[in-house]
Amino acid sequence: MSPNRALVFKEIPSGLPVPGKHLAVEEIPGDETTACPEGGLVLKSLYSSLDPYQRGRMRPPHVQSYYPALPVGETFTSRAIAQVVSSDNPQFRPGDTVIGMLSIQEVVILEAKSLPFVRLLDNPMSIEDIRAFLGPLGVPGLTAYGGLYEIGKPERGQTIFVSAASGAVGQMVGQIAKLEGLRVVGSVGSDEKLKFILDELGFDAGFNYKTESSLADALARVAPEGLDIFFDNVGGDHLDAALAHMKDHGRVVLCGTISDYNKAPEDRYPVRNTTYIFSKRLTVRGFLVSDKEIMEKYSAEHQRRVQGWLKDGTLRTKIWEVQGVENAPEAFLALFTGKNFGKVVLKY
Amino acid sequence: MSPNRALVFKEIPSGLPVPGKHLAVEEIPGDETTACPEGGLVLKSLYSSLDPYQRGRMRPPHVQSYYPALPVGETFTSRAIAQVVSSDNPQFRPGDTVIGMLSIQEVVILEAKSLPFVRLLDNPMSIEDIRAFLGPLGVPGLTAYGGLYEIGKPERGQTIFVSAASGAVGQMVGQIAKLEGLRVVGSVGSDEKLKFILDELGFDAGFNYKTESSLADALARVAPEGLDIFFDNVGGDHLDAALAHMKDHGRVVLCGTISDYNKAPEDRYPVRNTTYIFSKRLTVRGFLVSDKEIMEKYSAEHQRRVQGWLKDGTLRTKIWEVQGVENAPEAFLALFTGKNFGKVVLKY
Ligand SMILES: NC(=O)c1ccc[n+]([C@@H]2O[C@H](COP(=O)([O-])OP(=O)(O)OC[C@H]3O[C@@H](n4cnc5c(N)ncnc54)[C@H](OP(=O)(O)O)[C@@H]3O)[C@@H](O)[C@H]2O)c1
Ligand SMILES: NC(=O)c1ccc[n+]([C@@H]2O[C@H](COP(=O)([O-])OP(=O)(O)OC[C@H]3O[C@@H](n4cnc5c(N)ncnc54)[C@H](OP(=O)(O)O)[C@@H]3O)[C@@H](O)[C@H]2O)c1
Repeated sequence: MSPNRALVFKEIPSGLPVPGKHLAVEEIPGDETTACPEGGLVLKSLYSSLDPYQRGRMRPPHVQSYYPALPVGETFTSRAIAQVVSSDNPQFRPGDTVIGMLSIQEVVILEAKSLPFVRLLDNPMSIEDIRAFLGPLGVPGLTAYGGLYEIGKPERGQTIFVSAASGAVGQMVGQIAKLEGLRVVGSVGSDEKLKFILDELGFDAGFNYKTESSLADALARVAPEGLDIFFDNVGGDHLDAALAHMKDHGRVVLCGTISDYNKAPEDRYPVRNTTYIFSKRLTVRGFLVSDKEIMEKYSAEHQRRVQGWLKDGTLRTKIWEVQGVENAPEAFLALFTGKNFGKVVLKY
Repeated sequence: MSPNRALVFKEIPSGLPVPGKHLAVEEIPGDETTACPEGGLVLKSLYSSLDPYQRGRMRPPHVQSYYPALPVGETFTSRAIAQVVSSDNPQFRPGDTVIGMLSIQEVVILEAKSLPFVRLLDNPMSIEDIRAFLGPLGVPGLTAYGGLYEIGKPERGQTIFVSAASGAVGQMVGQIAKLEGLRVVGSVGSDEKLKFILDELGFDAGFNYKTESSLADALARVAPEGLDIFFDNVGGDHLDAALAHMKDHGRVVLCGTISDYNKAPEDRYPVRNTTYIFSKRLTVRGFLVSDKEIMEKYSAEHQRRVQGWLKDGTLRTKIWEVQGVENAPEAFLALFTGKNFGKVVLKY
């Protein structure tokens, strides 16, 4: 058997993590021939999701945040799809495909007590590319869907601006907003991504923020009518510029602030336009996909509608697949440099 | 008769307006003996409200904001209480007390077409001090009431922080929150104001932000449990510090950002903590008292409850009265230096 390898947290970083120093791929015990624990499973990983929030876990344990800190020395976890190698539980049989929160490693030995973290992959419409269950049908998809409807409150004819528009969440927000009859504009970090959101996702307009001298000017150009909704994945400079460009009573869906995740608090972008939240009577609201008003309210509807849209080709999915667990650090860090082009999935 | 004097807008200021230069009291035509216009009224002003939003009207007409720009050369307007001197309308009789949007001047000659701007003062509980209709029963009162309930969503046992806590809006917010069973903390700009909110309004804790070296430390001291609600009248540094101190799912009622009103956009306070709106899933929402969801939803309830509380002594009111229209500029500017101590009312 080949050795079992895992993505391990090595040291708390202060800026962008460095592979080999702050996170590393290491050999660990256990392989496909390991005896199945009593009542448990032996799983062979197929795909793992890599996500921006994992950066937030690489912090000192005493710092409070929405997701538990990962202790130094532990293996990263994430949503993953795996195949059952051996099972001591009647609900799972060898060959079954499961999905759940798993360690990022090639072979996962699950004790009985950890079984609640996985379930059989439910694919009623036989979606061919099961990686979709980590993207449009997974956490990024529900995030886009729930955040857009719950906070954005989209209405036909309104204008929405999406930041990080080609990413896992952004590509879904833009496409669903188009289906709802909105005018959709987006910002991305490369000309290739810009071409993609315009030509393949059907955005009405967009810009590459890396080649614009002023975000305010870019917004005024692509959405001279002003913004009813801003679905923000970036925060900082994007939030600042958009606040000044919102229409009265606009909604800012604060989905993430990825431009801050590698910054010390004192280095965060200085937002000077919060005064418009008052004078334009904006609602700026943050949310997590795991919040009750998203998870409970939208999960079933999201699965039903998005599965349908994927099946009939209404929605496009762009996945950025990286092969081999040895490349997991690079795949993860791409999220923060913008090297990824679509939902980041690690293929084992 | 004494001459008629008015508060006139002279020149667009760039910072804090200067009396005599940007606004001035000037003699204008008309006095109590002026013939009543057909279908109109002649009014003698009793009290005028002076309010922070009037600063926002002193801008170039092409700059968009929520309240129309005041053309240079025109008289300021505000909510006022006046007495009917002569009337050519059967609904009003000499001696009647009226309330409405009027020019800030000693005698007001109202054409028939301007009659919708005033109505008879409705005082069913015979509140003795009618200045209350410019304070707790007027715009600041409805602002406090509607903003607190609609956006703050107060719940017994929660903690609310109120900025500019001794002011017209702040004093109401704090007292109503106490009635709702909240823990109430406030910030003010002098030790005298601090004593007032603690000893007379019943705030649980507070601080004088002018003598604190760090707002973050002050908040941690007065509300170690964190904030469920922040009712913000100040913006800028207060908003920044409070965002870092909010509890998960907290609400920020962005009522005003008075610390910005005399600043150029580039000089506004750089807020670095917007990232917490995402990670703590906060709702930050601005509103105007004139918005439908405040005005229509809360006006009647506000009048009924607050009149009752004033009548039975449950609520205290602090009014800062300035006598004589010649002192109107000083009264107005006090709002921005913090010289006022309570609701600013000009008495004629
Ligand atoms: N609220 C929730 O429950 C929830 C759930 C999932 C994700 N999220 C958030 O959603 C956002 C997107 O996540 P995702 O999984 O869909 O990732 P993604 O968009 O597929 O990848 C991240 C992208 O962010 C952009 N980016 C990175 N650093 C940036 C910077 N400094 N300035 C501007 N753009 C930057 C890059 O795109 P460009 O090349 O276009 O710049 C990068 O490709 C993140 O903020 C994440 O935290 C929130
Ligand atoms: N949303 C609405 O519809 C609506 C309606 C009415 C009023 N408002 C807003 O509510 C707020 C309070 O208005 P108000 O009529 O009740 O006035 P107020 O509080 O009676 O007077 C203004 C007070 O603001 C404080 N202040 C001024 N400049 C400041 C600065 N740079 N930093 C910190 N504090 C400062 C001062 O108090 P200290 O001495 O304590 O600093 C001053 O006494 C304003 O922002 C106003 O625009 C909003």
